[in-house]
Amino acid sequence: MPVAPRTPPGVLELLPPQQLAFQRMLDTIRRGFERFGFLPVETPAFELSDVLLTKTGGETEKQVYFVQSTGALKEGGDPARRAEPGFAPPRPSLALRFDLTVPLARYVAEHEHELNFPFRRYQIQRVYRGERAQKGRYREFYQCDIDVIGKDTLALAYDAELPAIIHGIFSELAFGAFTIKLNNRKLLRGLLEHFGWKVEQHGDVLHEIDRLGKMASEEVVKRIVALEPGTETAAAKLVELMTTAPGDEGALEMVAQLVVAPSTVLAEGLDELRSVYRGTLALGVPAQQLKIDLSIARGLDYYTGTVYETFLDEHPRLGSICSGGRYENLAGHYTKSKLPGVGISIGATRLFSQLLEMNVIGAAQAAVAQVLVLAVEAPLAAEYARLATELRAAGLNVEVYGGNDKLAKQLKYADRAKVPLTLLVGTRERDAGVVKVKDMRETATVREQDVPRGEVVGAVQRLLLRTGTAST
Amino acid sequence: MPVAPRTPPGVLELLPPQQLAFQRMLDTIRRGFERFGFLPVETPAFELSDVLLTKTGGETEKQVYFVQSTGALKEGGDPARRAEPGFAPPRPSLALRFDLTVPLARYVAEHEHELNFPFRRYQIQRVYRGERAQKGRYREFYQCDIDVIGKDTLALAYDAELPAIIHGIFSELAFGAFTIKLNNRKLLRGLLEHFGWKVEQHGDVLHEIDRLGKMASEEVVKRIVALEPGTETAAAKLVELMTTAPGDEGALEMVAQLVVAPSTVLAEGLDELRSVYRGTLALGVPAQQLKIDLSIARGLDYYTGTVYETFLDEHPRLGSICSGGRYENLAGHYTKSKLPGVGISIGATRLFSQLLEMNVIGAAQAAVAQVLVLAVEAPLAAEYARLATELRAAGLNVEVYGGNDKLAKQLKYADRAKVPLTLLVGTRERDAGVVKVKDMRETATVREQDVPRGEVVGAVQRLLLRTGTAST
Repeated sequence: MPVAPRTPPGVLELLPPQQLAFQRMLDTIRRGFERFGFLPVETPAFELSDVLLTKTGGETEKQVYFVQSTGALKEGGDPARRAEPGFAPPRPSLALRFDLTVPLARYVAEHEHELNFPFRRYQIQRVYRGERAQKGRYREFYQCDIDVIGKDTLALAYDAELPAIIHGIFSELAFGAFTIKLNNRKLLRGLLEHFGWKVEQHGDVLHEIDRLGKMASEEVVKRIVALEPGTETAAAKLVELMTTAPGDEGALEMVAQLVVAPSTVLAEGLDELRSVYRGTLALGVPAQQLKIDLSIARGLDYYTGTVYETFLDEHPRLGSICSGGRYENLAGHYTKSKLPGVGISIGATRLFSQLLEMNVIGAAQAAVAQVLVLAVEAPLAAEYARLATELRAAGLNVEVYGGNDKLAKQLKYADRAKVPLTLLVGTRERDAGVVKVKDMRETATVREQDVPRGEVVGAVQRLLLRTGTAST
Repeated sequence: MPVAPRTPPGVLELLPPQQLAFQRMLDTIRRGFERFGFLPVETPAFELSDVLLTKTGGETEKQVYFVQSTGALKEGGDPARRAEPGFAPPRPSLALRFDLTVPLARYVAEHEHELNFPFRRYQIQRVYRGERAQKGRYREFYQCDIDVIGKDTLALAYDAELPAIIHGIFSELAFGAFTIKLNNRKLLRGLLEHFGWKVEQHGDVLHEIDRLGKMASEEVVKRIVALEPGTETAAAKLVELMTTAPGDEGALEMVAQLVVAPSTVLAEGLDELRSVYRGTLALGVPAQQLKIDLSIARGLDYYTGTVYETFLDEHPRLGSICSGGRYENLAGHYTKSKLPGVGISIGATRLFSQLLEMNVIGAAQAAVAQVLVLAVEAPLAAEYARLATELRAAGLNVEVYGGNDKLAKQLKYADRAKVPLTLLVGTRERDAGVVKVKDMRETATVREQDVPRGEVVGAVQRLLLRTGTAST
């Protein structure tokens, strides 16, 4: 009795046409990172548990997958050892990475003296989380991260570069109009302090602020006030600022007018946000796609300066599809060196699967192969091989049908595979010195034509260029 | 006290220059697969244990890594449950893949009705094995696999295609001269039967045959005879054939002369091997790089027809760097459909690390960035951004130095990063309408030149093309 072939729950496995589309998405992201000179890094899927889990007992550890070899498992299951009083199975020594940030911290700390700072790296790999299985949550998914890491200090200029990279990538991906939103955590901290909230309250206040847009402003004000009585005026002013401020430098002017004598941190936040906004515009990001949004906070612990979120204008319900920010110190758990950084991350698997479901992404329009050489007559096999080899030498992706199936079966295969062009050479064509080129695409203007044997490479290239399926 | 940052034993983690070289190697392999129209597939790193481990208790399972979420671990460690008589911790439900063949079988069986047969897929992913830690053995490593899977039957023509793909890839990788060796398991079986060995002895005999080249022929003959007394003549003839047969069709003629009345299986093997050899030559693989070698067997269980091995001529001690063959049925554990296939695999991690160690591969010659725009004067930041944006629009990979470090520090960064060109614009250059282009390469003929601002993109492109570091 065969075992039922099936994938574990919570993973995204694609059929080839979708995998091809996904591959092209990852390639575009990678090309966008490389266009700005970022260097590739890959780390192992598993890390030593004590290195990965420096903070124990957190939410994170609950989602960690541990890895054990068969030998280690046996040890934990040994009845004699288990019977000993106080026996506890040891924590497995390996665990799968749950993000790319902790491995980056470990990598930079481990190789600190061999890296060139500011260190600019990109990393496109899968991460693993033992999530409760539910729609849209994955236990294995791709993250595409870029970070710039400084030694001791890192110039603010890098904060302006990341949105430009994101703009380049999402323009090329062509998922529709999108907006990159900018804010600054120092500005937020300064504002909340100005209004009288203590630092330990900021998280709760920002958590309520995060509901703006999904909930009426008055309701958000009420919820903020509920956190601490007597904050009616402050809450109303804060919410008004955040909901009425424009998306450009006008927002900074509103803050400056509201707070006549800004604290150091608030003044710094204003300066930084202005500088990042202007720097991003200077890198060619159009103003209508770049908005200052004072309500964006991105969690409380990690980010300390610039923060980013990115939204597809036509699909706001997806939430931010690309987020990140500036942090004070990357690798405090691993080194005494101070390593400030700024980074941004695209959750490619979730984004792809959602856009696929909404038909924003279709399967790739064509096969990998651009040409299929049909196998019409067995004695002509060497001619099919030569034809394919010539086309490949010209940079085209070419398949030769194997064996001697009936022509109808071969054409059905080509059709299902979505190969744009098929080439047919039978005795008739061979004797006439021609190749029959069949255009399999729906958009074909000429379905079929005889091309002189010596001109076939050029003819195929012209046909493919006509509808943009040129070689990759 | 910080945790010491370190990777687990048995993984290959690279610094960025080496990672870049490795990335280019994987890209070349992928391009080679796509040139022949193969489709990408990716499968999850973990599979359900009962699906992955259909054959229990084998050598394979000893090397499997099991994956457990924190919740599942706790359950196995519960003292109350452990105290129950007969308690055995359950086998974890997930396990990391140890090759790409079992996941391919599962994939094809699971998606059988959605795939287009003959199904041509490539897969470039990491696999995991709990190997004893030792030099050259990895617990995580890349495999690059291609397979063609037929439904019920698969034409022999595909067997000739795989060596042509391998030839294209290793030619482009330029690791030095290489030889692809071909053999056929039916031919081997027929030969051994002809000489009187029973099928159950074939494994042992072939195991000894595998020593040819590493051990004197007479010694191999002795070892074969030791398996069964009275086989002196047969063993001598077999070894003589394998050591004296030429690398072309002459080998097949020698077999035909030796065995006057060949069995069906031997005749089939001869025909197949001749056909695959000729088909591969027809696809443009030069005869001096393609050798028939009757001594190649590739293990006993799996392969049933054509088998392949590939050797770097100057590094025979690496053994076969790319191997594979024809098999009867891919997915018998998962489906009743008969799915014959032919495939080949490159163990990219091991190959890369060995060639790196032998200095056959160096670190990539240049950075990802082709140009670094230096940040000389803060007020000119917008000009640097414009310059970089123009160059990027022309398809170049460009970095802008962030912040206002001293020029010497910026140039040191450029030098360490191996960026080919740096651009410098100070007030003097700005006012004169020029950009100072500094060629950082050792091969530079002109170290430094002023280029009119309007001509900088063209000048940079020409300089880069001159030494072959054009955009990717």
